[in-house]
Amino acid sequence: MKLELAKGVKDIYPEEKILQQKVMDVFRRTFELYGYAPLETPLLEKYEVLTSKYAGGSEILNEMFTLNDQGGRRLALRYDLTVPFCRFVGMNKTLKMPFKRYEMGPVFRDGPVSVSRFRQFWQCDVDVVGIKSMKIDAEFVEIFNKVFEELELNVEVRVNNRKILDAIMERLEINKPGEAILIVDKLDKIGVKGVSKELKEIGTEENQIRLLLKIISVEGTNKQKLKSLREQLGVCEGLDEIEEVMKYSNKFMFDISLARGLAYYTGTIYEVYLKNGEIKTAVASGGRYDKMICGFLESNKDYPALGISFGLSRIALALQNQNIKSVNKVYVIPIKTEVNEVVKNLRNSGINTDVDYNSRGVSKNLDYASKLGIPYCLIIGEKELKSNKYTLRDMNTGKELRLSITEIIKKFK
Amino acid sequence: MKLELAKGVKDIYPEEKILQQKVMDVFRRTFELYGYAPLETPLLEKYEVLTSKYAGGSEILNEMFTLNDQGGRRLALRYDLTVPFCRFVGMNKTLKMPFKRYEMGPVFRDGPVSVSRFRQFWQCDVDVVGIKSMKIDAEFVEIFNKVFEELELNVEVRVNNRKILDAIMERLEINKPGEAILIVDKLDKIGVKGVSKELKEIGTEENQIRLLLKIISVEGTNKQKLKSLREQLGVCEGLDEIEEVMKYSNKFMFDISLARGLAYYTGTIYEVYLKNGEIKTAVASGGRYDKMICGFLESNKDYPALGISFGLSRIALALQNQNIKSVNKVYVIPIKTEVNEVVKNLRNSGINTDVDYNSRGVSKNLDYASKLGIPYCLIIGEKELKSNKYTLRDMNTGKELRLSITEIIKKFK
Repeated sequence: MKLELAKGVKDIYPEEKILQQKVMDVFRRTFELYGYAPLETPLLEKYEVLTSKYAGGSEILNEMFTLNDQGGRRLALRYDLTVPFCRFVGMNKTLKMPFKRYEMGPVFRDGPVSVSRFRQFWQCDVDVVGIKSMKIDAEFVEIFNKVFEELELNVEVRVNNRKILDAIMERLEINKPGEAILIVDKLDKIGVKGVSKELKEIGTEENQIRLLLKIISVEGTNKQKLKSLREQLGVCEGLDEIEEVMKYSNKFMFDISLARGLAYYTGTIYEVYLKNGEIKTAVASGGRYDKMICGFLESNKDYPALGISFGLSRIALALQNQNIKSVNKVYVIPIKTEVNEVVKNLRNSGINTDVDYNSRGVSKNLDYASKLGIPYCLIIGEKELKSNKYTLRDMNTGKELRLSITEIIKKFK
Repeated sequence: MKLELAKGVKDIYPEEKILQQKVMDVFRRTFELYGYAPLETPLLEKYEVLTSKYAGGSEILNEMFTLNDQGGRRLALRYDLTVPFCRFVGMNKTLKMPFKRYEMGPVFRDGPVSVSRFRQFWQCDVDVVGIKSMKIDAEFVEIFNKVFEELELNVEVRVNNRKILDAIMERLEINKPGEAILIVDKLDKIGVKGVSKELKEIGTEENQIRLLLKIISVEGTNKQKLKSLREQLGVCEGLDEIEEVMKYSNKFMFDISLARGLAYYTGTIYEVYLKNGEIKTAVASGGRYDKMICGFLESNKDYPALGISFGLSRIALALQNQNIKSVNKVYVIPIKTEVNEVVKNLRNSGINTDVDYNSRGVSKNLDYASKLGIPYCLIIGEKELKSNKYTLRDMNTGKELRLSITEIIKKFK
């Protein structure tokens, strides 16, 4: 038998997993601070649920892992957390509204594989259903800011409203508004020239392009942009909504060209970008999707909803320089001594401790601790036990200190 | 489309998930305290890896979910975390030994379904490979005790050694030792009479049964049991090993009848039982499996290994009376007022807070908070805002206090 991983999946080594867990701790703490409760939906869903009309688009459905159980029932591995969320809301008729939940877990897509594209990956989602007020749209701006503040990452939260782009397209009488919006969304990547070219290709007229570019490239503060758009568009629900969001939070940049690909967004949309470093794609995003759940449930009931998603692996990548390789604080190296009591003492004080049980030599042990990235070693021979002064070696600097156990515990606290 | 879950899986509602997360926090903290690092292996593995000779027994293989990717590769959903662990060890030839890891994640079995048996469930495993010394066998006793101490659950950790049962069978020249061991393992459930009956059924002779029962029903302290067995068995590696474990830890009960079903255990075996409550089956278990990894890898190299597993849902069930239904500490109810600042203030102080954005009446809001199990409500009208004295309602007792925001924050800290 050849030992191999399934194609497109990977092991997450301790070094990476430690960091991911720290990031997810921040997610969880922040989501709960804002009143979101954890929900876990299964990884297996019925095939019909995941392929229903209002579930993921056809592209996603082509990448679905499907299987049968032994009873011949058709199943599939979930490709996102949003469809299971809608299914949950639909199945729980007595759910108290608003319902606020977060879910963090793996999802699967049987698609092309690359260095950064896997067939199993984590999604970390926060969603609320049952609130129409723009106060919640503003609160999501706060959540984005809080999460990245806690992670000590500098970000720009960009916000727009789908209804504004719709209004612009209508006002300019653009023929293919949907396609034009997706082109406008690329302004950041392909610039004014690229956008012009692509708009021309779908048959937009010269003067329409000129006016459109003028509108979406307005610069200035959020208020200035709003004022300029008011002058050009007149009455517009999207502008009213974003103005209300501004009333409750101003920690964002109003980005008129922001569209987001997914067709199901109906109002406020968000994208979050890192200000520094090499990751140029969004690290978090989301938006309001007021029509999706009722569509999915084929219901006449109103299900106003808002959801955002955080890119776990991308965010962990941005924090890689934190370099916390080991869960351990200290590695105890006995030299022909019984160190049971010392180890117990350290652990009872809450200090993550590992110890050599294989009676290896000191240099082999130091090498082991260094390879594992454990920051300190505590070397204990007969002399040290008698004098209650132990040699604590800082594995980064190589410096050694002679300390009592009380002093060591104090140092680590 | 009918909204249904796949057969045999379930949604874990916030109430249950909050508790499970708290339990897993304790697991993680304790595992890391003892130097175990997190590892995440994928949920999808190659079919050949999961069905290799030394992987799970034929029973488990019959319950495997299998599927193909779009490239026609045969895959399966993992049914435990041990086989992926062995695969990981085998694929990473340069892994520094000993390798200590924990993994917590879902596994799948396409088998019969009951109220407590699901097709997707969590496993929480701790394993180490590369240590022969009994010091690590003793350390696992400590880990069991520490985990349940932190969870404030009273447990009995039962320990035995497979080699002792083997020696007893050999000494008594019992014909079908494997089957006899599995019968002896049921002593707790079916009593002396039941064991006698079943031993007879597999052809064990009267005097063999009498002697066997005499040996395994020795009572007294661990040391007394050890002494009695020494007298009856003479030289026995299993007794040497458990004696060494006793040297390093005495927080367990030496249970001579304990066998554990799985064939791959080679030495120390553990089972942990709750002393109180209704759960009579083991809540954690494990043992030493020195031969499994080299068998799985078809290698001549030595891979001494030890692993234990915690039953997450069973343990969460035992803690259900803790009744932490909500992530929120307080629910803010505005009466035609703007409470943005109060809510921000509470959250900035680290207090999990939710707030009504739907402008509902007070009684509707109180009902909502009560249904969700939020312990406190903060009711804020115009008068309260002006006087900076707010009505804090204890949802359990119905008592109300009038407090300033500073007093409220202090109360919750």
